Amino acid sequence: MGFDRLIKRIQETGNPSVVGLDPKLDYVPSFIKEKHFKENGMTLRAAANAIREFNFALIDALYDMVPAVKPQAAYYEMYGYEGVRVLTETIAYAKSKNMFVITDGKRNDIGATMEAYATAHLGCVSVGTETLEPFGADALTVNGYLGTDGIRPLLRICAEKDKGIFVLVKTSNPSSGELQDRKIGEDTVYDVMGDMCETWGADQIGEFGYSAVGAVVGATYPEQLRELRVRLPHTFFLVPGYGAQGGGAAGVAAAFDQNGLGAIVNSSRGIMCAYQKEMDCPEADFAGAARREAIRMREDLCSHIK
Amino acid sequence: MGFDRLIKRIQETGNPSVVGLDPKLDYVPSFIKEKHFKENGMTLRAAANAIREFNFALIDALYDMVPAVKPQAAYYEMYGYEGVRVLTETIAYAKSKNMFVITDGKRNDIGATMEAYATAHLGCVSVGTETLEPFGADALTVNGYLGTDGIRPLLRICAEKDKGIFVLVKTSNPSSGELQDRKIGEDTVYDVMGDMCETWGADQIGEFGYSAVGAVVGATYPEQLRELRVRLPHTFFLVPGYGAQGGGAAGVAAAFDQNGLGAIVNSSRGIMCAYQKEMDCPEADFAGAARREAIRMREDLCSHIK
Repeated sequence: MGFDRLIKRIQETGNPSVVGLDPKLDYVPSFIKEKHFKENGMTLRAAANAIREFNFALIDALYDMVPAVKPQAAYYEMYGYEGVRVLTETIAYAKSKNMFVITDGKRNDIGATMEAYATAHLGCVSVGTETLEPFGADALTVNGYLGTDGIRPLLRICAEKDKGIFVLVKTSNPSSGELQDRKIGEDTVYDVMGDMCETWGADQIGEFGYSAVGAVVGATYPEQLRELRVRLPHTFFLVPGYGAQGGGAAGVAAAFDQNGLGAIVNSSRGIMCAYQKEMDCPEADFAGAARREAIRMREDLCSHIK
Repeated sequence: MGFDRLIKRIQETGNPSVVGLDPKLDYVPSFIKEKHFKENGMTLRAAANAIREFNFALIDALYDMVPAVKPQAAYYEMYGYEGVRVLTETIAYAKSKNMFVITDGKRNDIGATMEAYATAHLGCVSVGTETLEPFGADALTVNGYLGTDGIRPLLRICAEKDKGIFVLVKTSNPSSGELQDRKIGEDTVYDVMGDMCETWGADQIGEFGYSAVGAVVGATYPEQLRELRVRLPHTFFLVPGYGAQGGGAAGVAAAFDQNGLGAIVNSSRGIMCAYQKEMDCPEADFAGAARREAIRMREDLCSHIK
């Protein structure tokens, strides 16, 4: 219920971080790419298979100390349906290693169609007399611009299958304020969205006090993080923007409650591409570099959280 | 430039409508499903291939008189990567028949990731020395909640490759007002989003006066349609909600300008499932029923537009 499964993994690993798997082909070491180009030519299939090998090696290097991965759907769609196949395989592999999987898709639509997205990413679909799981993630990021009837189908699946969602509230990008910071009476647009998260989650609060409806709040806006942590006591935060986007651990600490819970912090490129930044790191040690950076990040976060 | 290619197809066919290809398996006639279950069992692959056969037959029946199709990504994702393969094949087939293809994905993310979505759905990706087109649609629906840097990567691809986007402004669902109708000063949230569309499109205005940045405005809110048509003179409208959702042609007429241009009206289930509603229509005539309904819709729309 709520995000209990995720929170327990965070406690077991002592690590409130999630690794974003956003695999541009540029991030994949050349020796992996060359191998797959040899097998399948310079095709979408080869690109996708190279990404699979990269992802699987990262998961192998991280699963015992990182509680969750967050594959970003855009980077898989960029390699067509072969890329989407590898998204499916990455989700399954991470789950087999006991990681909590958040598909970052920011999906949104009206009720009937949102039902299809919910089924696709978190649920099961009927085909004849069979019931099949298309993607099988544990949680999905969504955009609440369409209001309650775009969220309701997700709530049903969260309750039935112990899944979660993260609704965009205050995003980490520079222009997020153009709409999100505008004032609706005394509140901002992101306040209103945050309040809707509290409402949507009210019936599904888990043992740690957090509901199945989380919020995305960027590390790059620490004041808003602090303000929203107080305003949204039952809403678990997914915090992007640490590291590469400029958010630091001191600011991010505001996302956590007095028990050191309530948020998970994402790093994507910082961990996937650690081998490109580490001095004298051979390409072949890309997974080792990712692990070293993940350890550094865990220590950085934990030293700032109560 | 702008939506000129689409507008010319609308003029050639005398038909400002778009058929939504939102293929739940329930919509596919049994004889098609049975055939594919026999070939591949009750699998995601069989479901996807059944949908492909259904879509291709609908396209064959409609391409000479309907200017555009709008596949809804959710219904393909619901059948996993096999479904996404069929989305790709449906886009290619519709384009081969000279239809304008709008992928309804309502994608949104921060700049670097939106770049990946833009590349995936409208652009080309580099793999080694090859340049490949992952999905190849003509236009994509997007959600502007994240502001300008989530839209900018799309604008570049629109300019380079003569593509378009439709930004969610006022959606057709019952709860769209929860956020979209809230007041920011004198304006509503959807007014502010609409104004951003005018700004984003200002450098890419085509020969009919419409930019490459369109807006989604629901048929179920005719007053807002009328108001936005005046407020957003360079923004082409994609109007969902006609038919099954309750929007009528009289209300929808407000989406059009004095030249009878400026909008395209979507019907999905109404056309795809026409064979289930038409009296005594045999399943085998599903494509004929779709065509008859598309003709009825064209006449209904045209009789209400100046």
